[in-house]
This record gives sequence, C-alpha cells and structure tokens, in this order.
Amino acid sequence: MSESLAEIGEEEIINRLKRFMPFGQSDDDTALLNTFKKNVLVNTDVLVEGTHFSKNTTSPQDIGWRAITANLSDLASNGVDQVLGITVGLVAPPQTQWEWVEGVYNGIWEALERFGGNVLGGDCSSGQQKLLAITAIGTPGPLRLQRSQAIPGDWLVTSGPHGLSRLGLALLNSDPLANSDQLSKALKSKAILAHQRPMPPLKALRALESCKPTLLPWRAGGTDSSDGLIQAVKNLCRSSGCQAVLDPKKIPKNDDWPLGSHWDNWCINGGEDFELVLSLPSMWAKNLIKVLPNSKAIGYMENGPPNIIWGDSRDPITECSDFKHF
Amino acid sequence: MSESLAEIGEEEIINRLKRFMPFGQSDDDTALLNTFKKNVLVNTDVLVEGTHFSKNTTSPQDIGWRAITANLSDLASNGVDQVLGITVGLVAPPQTQWEWVEGVYNGIWEALERFGGNVLGGDCSSGQQKLLAITAIGTPGPLRLQRSQAIPGDWLVTSGPHGLSRLGLALLNSDPLANSDQLSKALKSKAILAHQRPMPPLKALRALESCKPTLLPWRAGGTDSSDGLIQAVKNLCRSSGCQAVLDPKKIPKNDDWPLGSHWDNWCINGGEDFELVLSLPSMWAKNLIKVLPNSKAIGYMENGPPNIIWGDSRDPITECSDFKHF
Repeated sequence: MSESLAEIGEEEIINRLKRFMPFGQSDDDTALLNTFKKNVLVNTDVLVEGTHFSKNTTSPQDIGWRAITANLSDLASNGVDQVLGITVGLVAPPQTQWEWVEGVYNGIWEALERFGGNVLGGDCSSGQQKLLAITAIGTPGPLRLQRSQAIPGDWLVTSGPHGLSRLGLALLNSDPLANSDQLSKALKSKAILAHQRPMPPLKALRALESCKPTLLPWRAGGTDSSDGLIQAVKNLCRSSGCQAVLDPKKIPKNDDWPLGSHWDNWCINGGEDFELVLSLPSMWAKNLIKVLPNSKAIGYMENGPPNIIWGDSRDPITECSDFKHF
Repeated sequence: MSESLAEIGEEEIINRLKRFMPFGQSDDDTALLNTFKKNVLVNTDVLVEGTHFSKNTTSPQDIGWRAITANLSDLASNGVDQVLGITVGLVAPPQTQWEWVEGVYNGIWEALERFGGNVLGGDCSSGQQKLLAITAIGTPGPLRLQRSQAIPGDWLVTSGPHGLSRLGLALLNSDPLANSDQLSKALKSKAILAHQRPMPPLKALRALESCKPTLLPWRAGGTDSSDGLIQAVKNLCRSSGCQAVLDPKKIPKNDDWPLGSHWDNWCINGGEDFELVLSLPSMWAKNLIKVLPNSKAIGYMENGPPNIIWGDSRDPITECSDFKHF
C-alpha cells in the first residue's frame, strides 16, 4: 500500500528511517564515531532532482547508490583509507510516496555494504523538490591526493574509460544523438549500468597505492572526473599551476566507442565517470598502467599557463563540460 | 552591483566561497580534520525556505546564524565539548543574487566565531528552493547527554524560558495573535532577537557539567527544545520509557509573558527555543538552578507509560507542536 510522507507524518518517518542507521544516531540528533585513531576526511555533496537525477532515468535505489558513489569518489580522489560513515539530509515534497524514501535508503545501504561505512544519522524535511545532501567521513591513507600536487614532467593517467555515463543517460532518455550503427549491445548495457550504478574509484586508489616505486615520495596530483575528464584536468592545471598536454590519440574511450566528434565530446566532457585523473611521475604511472587494466596515460604536465592543449596541434581545449550545476 | 548565480557561473561561485573556508577544503572536495584525539559527534540538519525560514522574517545573515545554532544545539544536547567544524550544502535557484549566498555565509561565520569551529567545506547546487544542509562535527565532553538516559525520580529542568522565538515570528509576520496590551517593548525586542539570532545552549551545558555533585555518575537525560518544549519532553519520555509530570504553575515563561491559553500554547509548543531540556537527579538539578540564572524545574519523571501529564489534574498533555516538517 502506498502512503505519502504527509500521510505517514514526521514521527513515523523518523521511526522508519531508524532501521537504516543501526550503528548511528537513533534517538538523538548526533552520532558518535567510536573508532577515530587518525585524522579524518570529510566531504559533503548535494544531489538535486532535475539537476543531478531525474525519475525517467534513475530509480530511487539508483539515486541512493549514486549519491554514495559521488561522495566516496570525492573521498577516494583525496586518498581515503577507510570509509567511516555518512550522514543523510533528505528533502522531499509532502506528497512523495514512502517507497521513494525507502528506495533511496536501500540504494544507500547497498552501496555502503559494498564500499564500507555506516549511516551515522541525518535529517529529513519537506521541500518543493527531492534532494539528497550527503556528508561522508573517512580516514586518510598514506597518499594524500590533491589537485595542487601535480608538477611539470608528470604523466597524466586516468583510471578508466570516459563517456559511458553520458551515453547511458542519452540511451535512457531515448536521445537521438545516442543512435549509431556502431553501438554494440554490450556497450549499451555497460553505458546504462555506468549511469545507474557508477562505482567510486576505490580499487583504482588501492592499485595506485600498491605500485608506488619505493624510492618515490607519496606525492601525486589527483582528482575525480565527476564533472568530466577535461574539467578534472583543468582543475589539476589550475590548482598546480601547470599546463596539460593531451594526446588526441589517447583519449580514454571504451574499446568499441563510436567515431565522430560528438562521441569524442561525450567522452571528454560527459561527466559522472567517477574515475581518478592523476598526475604522476612516469615510473609510477607505468607501474599503474601495468596493474590497473583499464587505466591509460593520456598526456603530460609541462611548465606553462594553467591551460589544456592538444599535443599534436598545440591548440587549446576550450570546450566546456555538459554538466553545469547552475 | 547585483549578480545572479546564473550570471556569475559555478566556477566563480566556488572561487568566492573559498574565502569562507580558509582552514578547510579549498581546491579539493574533502576536508582533512587535523586534531582528532578523541571520538567525535556528528550531526546533520536541513533548513528549507518556506518550512524553516522565510525572507519576510529572516535575513540571509540570520539564516546562516540560525542554521549553525540549530546544528550546535543538537551537538550541545548530546554533550559536545569542542565544535571542530561544519560542512555546508547550499542549494538556491539560478536567479538567486550572490548577496544572498554571501549573507548566509557571513551569518555562518559570525556564529562560528562566537561558538567555535570552522567551515570545513561543502557543496553548492541549483534547485527550485533555497536550502541549507549543515553537518557539524565536534568532540564529546564528559557527559554524554541522551534522550534515553532519563529515569523515574529525575527532575525535569529547562535551561531557559520558552515561546520567545514563536512570539518573535508572529511579531515579524504582523500576526494579530501577537497583539496584546500586556506585551512590553522589552519583551518584543527580546522575542524578535530570539527568533532571528537564537543561541545554542552551550553555556547551559557548561553550567550543567560544572555543577554535577561529585558522588553522582555522569548520567543525565537530555535533548534540546528546537521542536518545542512538549515535544522535547515527549522525546525524553519515549526514549527512556518514563512518564513525565509537569507542574502547570512552573512552565518556563519569560517574566513578563502575557496570560492566556494561546500564550501558554506558544510557550510550550512554539518551537525553535534551542534550550536544553534535562532529566536530572534532584541534587544535580538544584545545583544547576543555582548556577544557571534562567533555568527552571518544571516537573519530574515517574514510572508509567511514556506520556506527559499535568501534575494537578493528572490530565494528559496531547497538544501538538506548531512546528511540522511535513
């Protein structure tokens, strides 16, 4: 039987939500984290219906899963060791059905079971628009990845192919741009999965940590490609004061990705890929490419203004990401 | 010159926000907290325009201040020692003027300067409705206040008078219910200030910790009255499995609070008072009333179903709070 949030009432909503946070806050408004022996990393991300997800393309479970992926991807791109937990701020209109809230929390749980961490608590309120604000807390590992840590001479490496999530979105929206004779069935399924069930790059981070040449210090530039590959590289350039040179023959497309400029654009600007984009000493980069199957060197950093240029023509890359928050 | 968020663009918005978090995340998506030697308390609160604030009654600065107060009040009602910091999830429609965002952050800063803690980071997105999701992190003090820690025989004590914020809201809305010959100018100003610039009960918590009789253990039931005095007592009853008996002659009104049932109702159900509502051994309660000027014993806990009754008639208190989130 379907019930709207207004019918259920706040008290009962809170009661029902408690079963999602057995290790976190229950009666009280604050959660106590028991196991801090180290510094912690903290991150907050907001996902808004219409901007970050739509009911046409994303089930409630997928919304919950993707919210966790977005936050853990941010933690991973700063070198998280263990995910301690998250808090959930959830907003929905009064007429929202309970099944939606439950679905979102189920997706959150599924993701946390897979990637670690508990629901520590949260808040729930009515509003015109569905919205999730997640704060994730984790302990830092040996490598503090930062955007500002790239230096000239570094190789640029991505942990995986790009554009799949953008293609998945287009397929789910029956966007005519997604029509191509070159699209294999396998690529279609992979793209839809990449959009609905993206993975935070935790395995890639573990691989990166495992293959550092002993003589090198724990220094690497890094971020994730949640706003697209070009935006990620741009962020590295700006924070580190380097110029990035990308090899147009090495942009990290999926094996059977179609040819054409609009497909190239989806690859480099599609967004929500949640891969690591790294700036590494060449030795470390070579090791990573050996141990991480889908990783790829895409270019290098050099002295210069904080721009991105193509290596063949030295033309600047100015195209913007599809993904705008405003 | 006024600029809307859509005109400024996301990149510049993020740049402008960075100056509000000099000790937190700047280039990256995650903040590192440096000083954990203890467990931490974590709390998330969401404030939505229309539900928790309106532009008629609350300036952007006041919204920021009140968001911090709401979160720190939650931390205080669980026994926080030091406030380490907060993250801010901010949502606003694209046409929102930058001045609004800046005002909110200025209010946040003002409050943190007063009460401790830094802005550790956050996220910003467009949405139909203005909204703040704040996560606050703090270290726990010696007393872990919890709703479940009340026991029969405890006295019920509030750290201050109630209803002022509700009256302030009514005055700001020119609500005819706020008209009374009995309303002094001083009470009016105090009520408006209580609504626009509420204080988290950190001083009350310090007083409570300072006056514990040496022989007693660190055990007390407690919560804050953000959703009204009756709701706070109800939460204590429910979590602790006790019946609360309130003395109608002792409800914690301001000195010159008008007489009448609707005024009584605003006092006990108005909400957003952000006082501590405590369940304490009588010895500790008596000490607190001595050291904390506005605190007041309002009743006691006894064995029984988790209800609230009036002490004179033994009638149940069933009135509900004005303050509904759904």
